[in-house]
Amino acid sequence: MTVLETFASLESDTLVRVDDHQLSRFVTVKPAMCGHNARLVGQIGDWTWEAVSHLCGVNAFRATDAQDVPTYLSFFYYQLIGDSAFHLRVPTFGDRLQVVSRCYGFGPESILTIHRLAPASRMLPATVSAEEMLRVRLPGCLYVQTFNRWIQRRGQGNRELQSAAPSGFRYQHLDQLPLELSPRAAYDAARRSGSFVLDDGTLLLRDDLRLTYEVDMGRDLNGVGLLYFASYFEIADSALAKAWRQLGRSDASFLARVVHAQRLLFLANADACTNLTIRIRRFEVPAQPGREVFDIGISERDSGRVLAIVELCCEEKA
Amino acid sequence: MTVLETFASLESDTLVRVDDHQLSRFVTVKPAMCGHNARLVGQIGDWTWEAVSHLCGVNAFRATDAQDVPTYLSFFYYQLIGDSAFHLRVPTFGDRLQVVSRCYGFGPESILTIHRLAPASRMLPATVSAEEMLRVRLPGCLYVQTFNRWIQRRGQGNRELQSAAPSGFRYQHLDQLPLELSPRAAYDAARRSGSFVLDDGTLLLRDDLRLTYEVDMGRDLNGVGLLYFASYFEIADSALAKAWRQLGRSDASFLARVVHAQRLLFLANADACTNLTIRIRRFEVPAQPGREVFDIGISERDSGRVLAIVELCCEEKA
Repeated sequence: MTVLETFASLESDTLVRVDDHQLSRFVTVKPAMCGHNARLVGQIGDWTWEAVSHLCGVNAFRATDAQDVPTYLSFFYYQLIGDSAFHLRVPTFGDRLQVVSRCYGFGPESILTIHRLAPASRMLPATVSAEEMLRVRLPGCLYVQTFNRWIQRRGQGNRELQSAAPSGFRYQHLDQLPLELSPRAAYDAARRSGSFVLDDGTLLLRDDLRLTYEVDMGRDLNGVGLLYFASYFEIADSALAKAWRQLGRSDASFLARVVHAQRLLFLANADACTNLTIRIRRFEVPAQPGREVFDIGISERDSGRVLAIVELCCEEKA
Repeated sequence: MTVLETFASLESDTLVRVDDHQLSRFVTVKPAMCGHNARLVGQIGDWTWEAVSHLCGVNAFRATDAQDVPTYLSFFYYQLIGDSAFHLRVPTFGDRLQVVSRCYGFGPESILTIHRLAPASRMLPATVSAEEMLRVRLPGCLYVQTFNRWIQRRGQGNRELQSAAPSGFRYQHLDQLPLELSPRAAYDAARRSGSFVLDDGTLLLRDDLRLTYEVDMGRDLNGVGLLYFASYFEIADSALAKAWRQLGRSDASFLARVVHAQRLLFLANADACTNLTIRIRRFEVPAQPGREVFDIGISERDSGRVLAIVELCCEEKA
């Protein structure tokens, strides 16, 4: 056996440790990690788990607590910020990306990770920070923040989950996030009000639609039987596609939409075949013509229990 | 920057070239490549493209013809054979797999690839062959055969695709498949009759259901806007889940189903929001109690054009 070289026409994916807080990688975009779906969202989620595995002393893919009960690094808050040049649906087959991932400590039961994705050809700093993502973004980059919490099952099914710190999880060496950059205030407010949209007069409600969905046991559950975090994104996008048609817009304009920012708060999991109600509100931004905000609430139809709150900030394509 | 070591609790994924025909890899199963969905199917598809990229002199992820028009290595026939110990839904978070991938030459416009997946802990040969997959399978392994054809768009939309050989594609050095192991006879017969199921008296038709589906532009299209090959698997599984309920079976028994063999023939692509008719026939196998075969046909509702033919061989879980 030899290391790959003869005939090889594909650059290898590489992964290096920048320092105790950060990983850096070059990667070729493949069909299973891009498209009009949540595959890139899922891939970035794996990069969070990989960063934690390489930086925090615990294999996130098979972590357990002291009693050997599996613990999962569940997604609680997931924020994306790009621009019209580079957003979630820009990367396609064969593109080479550079990705920097940095973990911040958040105590024994949580962790926050920042990723910066950009074309590999760009000359960019070797490091990233929450401050860069939230205050001084570089153009043409897609920034992602994931806030994860360690959980485990408390009973049968997917409705009862509880916090659980895994054995061996090291976070004390990581930087802590300055309070003013923490997502906590934003997600706490969203959890209380049921929406990320602030009632401060900057947005104008234009449409208010309700759709239904049934959790699909043929495609929505992950490898441990939970509703997969990336499926929440697909359920929201699938509902948005239906709303798009109800608003009289073309399929082509849906596929060409530019979502420059998006965030999703995961509040609960659900079992296969659960009936969901999806409320989609569309807001215009009077101060920024051509911009619109979709506020999506996903809840259990029968109990009213809220599963997720989603916000998408879009701009119309020129 | 340093190569990963300190704190790292995760074994690296590795890829080596065995010879001019074969690659071998060790890989950790991650959430984005397993579960009750077609993510592992999609990941294996990427491995086909990677094998071609490393063995055939052309970067399959960004191949073009002599006029620089993109060509895609589309999936035409995809066959999986496992057993109750190791099938598509067995791998889960953190499992380590060993995968061997081998390409066979099929002329300038096609290629056939065999993969063998197994737990990394198994002592297995470094190589694989079509003969091993079809005649002398090792227990506890999942075998996959993909037959791919180079295509490109002929017009607007997804309905008009044509064969197109990419520049630089080397296949002359690859072994050719013995005629008796070629999938051609099977898929030609299925194309003619509309089903893989042979009318030879070995199967007993028990149920015949019809469902509908609309191609979901929020989740079914790939990074170049085509209906993603893995979405065909999810559309079939989603319909199977609905059929399962119509047959009065439990959700738990659906999630626990063992599909020891499956094949899918891709006959056409489709545009976003196309309405589909899905016919599901269930057969019992009198000679093998507990075995059943689902025959699924996916076609355009309005034109009747057949998009795909699927066959799943299942055994009831003890």
